[in-house]
Amino acid sequence: MSPVITLLTDYGLEDGYVAACHGVIAGIAPQVRVIDVCHLVPSGDVRRGAAILAQTIPYLPAGIHIGIVDPCAGGARRAVAVEAGERIFIGPDNGLLSWAIATSGGATAAHEITNTDLLLSPVSPTFHGRDVYSPVAAHLCTGNKLSDVGSEIPLDRLVSLPSPISHVREGAVEGEVVSVDRFGNTQLSIAAGDLASVGVRVGDTLGVWLGRRQVSLPFRESFSAVPPGELVAFTDSAGLIALAVNSGDAAQRLGLPPGAHVRLSALP
Amino acid sequence: MSPVITLLTDYGLEDGYVAACHGVIAGIAPQVRVIDVCHLVPSGDVRRGAAILAQTIPYLPAGIHIGIVDPCAGGARRAVAVEAGERIFIGPDNGLLSWAIATSGGATAAHEITNTDLLLSPVSPTFHGRDVYSPVAAHLCTGNKLSDVGSEIPLDRLVSLPSPISHVREGAVEGEVVSVDRFGNTQLSIAAGDLASVGVRVGDTLGVWLGRRQVSLPFRESFSAVPPGELVAFTDSAGLIALAVNSGDAAQRLGLPPGAHVRLSALP
Amino acid sequence: MSPVITLLTDYGLEDGYVAACHGVIAGIAPQVRVIDVCHLVPSGDVRRGAAILAQTIPYLPAGIHIGIVDPCAGGARRAVAVEAGERIFIGPDNGLLSWAIATSGGATAAHEITNTDLLLSPVSPTFHGRDVYSPVAAHLCTGNKLSDVGSEIPLDRLVSLPSPISHVREGAVEGEVVSVDRFGNTQLSIAAGDLASVGVRVGDTLGVWLGRRQVSLPFRESFSAVPPGELVAFTDSAGLIALAVNSGDAAQRLGLPPGAHVRLSALP
Repeated sequence: MSPVITLLTDYGLEDGYVAACHGVIAGIAPQVRVIDVCHLVPSGDVRRGAAILAQTIPYLPAGIHIGIVDPCAGGARRAVAVEAGERIFIGPDNGLLSWAIATSGGATAAHEITNTDLLLSPVSPTFHGRDVYSPVAAHLCTGNKLSDVGSEIPLDRLVSLPSPISHVREGAVEGEVVSVDRFGNTQLSIAAGDLASVGVRVGDTLGVWLGRRQVSLPFRESFSAVPPGELVAFTDSAGLIALAVNSGDAAQRLGLPPGAHVRLSALP
Repeated sequence: MSPVITLLTDYGLEDGYVAACHGVIAGIAPQVRVIDVCHLVPSGDVRRGAAILAQTIPYLPAGIHIGIVDPCAGGARRAVAVEAGERIFIGPDNGLLSWAIATSGGATAAHEITNTDLLLSPVSPTFHGRDVYSPVAAHLCTGNKLSDVGSEIPLDRLVSLPSPISHVREGAVEGEVVSVDRFGNTQLSIAAGDLASVGVRVGDTLGVWLGRRQVSLPFRESFSAVPPGELVAFTDSAGLIALAVNSGDAAQRLGLPPGAHVRLSALP
Repeated sequence: MSPVITLLTDYGLEDGYVAACHGVIAGIAPQVRVIDVCHLVPSGDVRRGAAILAQTIPYLPAGIHIGIVDPCAGGARRAVAVEAGERIFIGPDNGLLSWAIATSGGATAAHEITNTDLLLSPVSPTFHGRDVYSPVAAHLCTGNKLSDVGSEIPLDRLVSLPSPISHVREGAVEGEVVSVDRFGNTQLSIAAGDLASVGVRVGDTLGVWLGRRQVSLPFRESFSAVPPGELVAFTDSAGLIALAVNSGDAAQRLGLPPGAHVRLSALP
């Protein structure tokens, strides 16, 4: 197992929570490198955390990938360690990990984390990142096997988040806003290939239906293909269609929050 | 000495200040790992910095721990290096380090940092993190001894922050708000054991006096034991009583800033 | 080449963008250390990014320094790798790197990044940090030479940002606000030496002209030389004159945004 652990949480950066996780890992596995994926997932937003993790994972070295966005910490859901190819995902079994697991080829084994020898003692009911996930990840880097964490779970019992809707219908592609980044770029659940399948090519004008509103905008290689201040659609760095304003905020301009439904088609 | 340096500051993340500290350390001690504890301590808030450091330190490997929240940088206070067990704390002698030192078993030796051979030259009057604390920490990892940094200080001359008030009186526990985290969870200066000593058990209803107001709320294992939107008290990951709203913001709901006084007792 | 890569971007910390860069580097050059310089450069603010990089670079170990603030990503500007002494700077050729290159002694060689063997494939038009700059930097740490990245560029064709104005005239120094930090400290483009050249010494009273307004304030060693709430000027940690309010926000008090013009002279 490659000695890399990655860490995604909604802990924020205003406290020592993330550092406590780093510290626990460094105490057990001093030689392991930790890569922070993101700690500013909006508090409790499992879908946003799942999207960030799934879109980043193809660019991370194979390793142990901790994800913690857990509005029900201390509640009934399980803590799990899930193998997917060369990767192991660790976190709450609430769907957060499911899209990244799918991106990594799907789960090949799953175990519930119950072996208290691998945890801090006592385990705080509310800080499983420090007391459960970090020490388990570190122990998996220092000789423990996946099966040491606890009993196996049938793969079909793992919680999966429903995928964002996306389908091709009557010459148009329907999808939803997956996420809005710092620049106001609005990422849709529509893959570049699906847009191509309804005949839209780079250089075309795209019709965008937002409920009853319709706007038309150019489909280009990049947001910088249009003058500052203008709307544009392009294939983003995750291979999904994004709506953007060059040097502006498309999400605000179009009034498109995550989850909003969008329909795209070629305009003549 | 273990080659780990940890770093807590109020420098924020919008500039290159933290990177300059990392760079100075890497230049002197390239093999040393640096763990960031927190850089978003509110500007100049020594008590908040002290609380974060003290609550995180038990989970960090023994090493050199730099803390910098220094509203009087360039003023009269000393720069110090304080040994506490296997740890060495480095920072301004303004009380910032005092709670973490206490948590680590108390100071066993203290030296004022005056040896200019271990500092950058010139020393900027306002950026001691880069010019004083980082290079001293790095030199302590590469062969220098604590006594090399400057002359010894009597331990009773180190500045200590007064602890947050907390006492048991007439069947109730009084304390204050120590901190409010990103989730709006309100951490009190009241230890779980003190609440137990006045007869409150998990499952009980707790009376909370906030000045003249009184609210009653359930004392549970975790915030997730109550429905979303409801108030709850629980023992947090630092072993202190916290008031929270499941998926909500207790500090805002109750109007409780850091320092606010609170009194807790069992309700029949 | 020292195995250190540093990374400055305007990607923010709310997504996995920075992590994807770290991951790509770790995949190609697992033993290389990455130091984050800053990722909260305001979106597309090339001058602010250039100032942060130039002021931090003297404190970073020699290595590969990636800078990415690129409002025209996917547009016509070149991707470059520029050698300056022992350092190599990598980023868009839009001036972002120019002040740091000057601070490092000036460019000694420059190459356009065109060798697709060193890039991810395909290259996203909008995420060159992940697909171009990070893999090129990593490959330069693992045996590739600067000339491997692409064809040489004449040094005088590199884009340079105009320096902030600063000149001495009629017994006064004129300059502009370079940046405002988290504390509201206002950094001017005026070097300490220029202020000395018009006869201002520590301890003097300084006349500050802001357009037609004039304020007078003490020139001291540090902001802490004046009582909390009072204005002060001092030489900051980059050797530039800064206007500050002890424990307050000078930029807000004086209404001084980046770029605002300021004139300083001695008052009798």
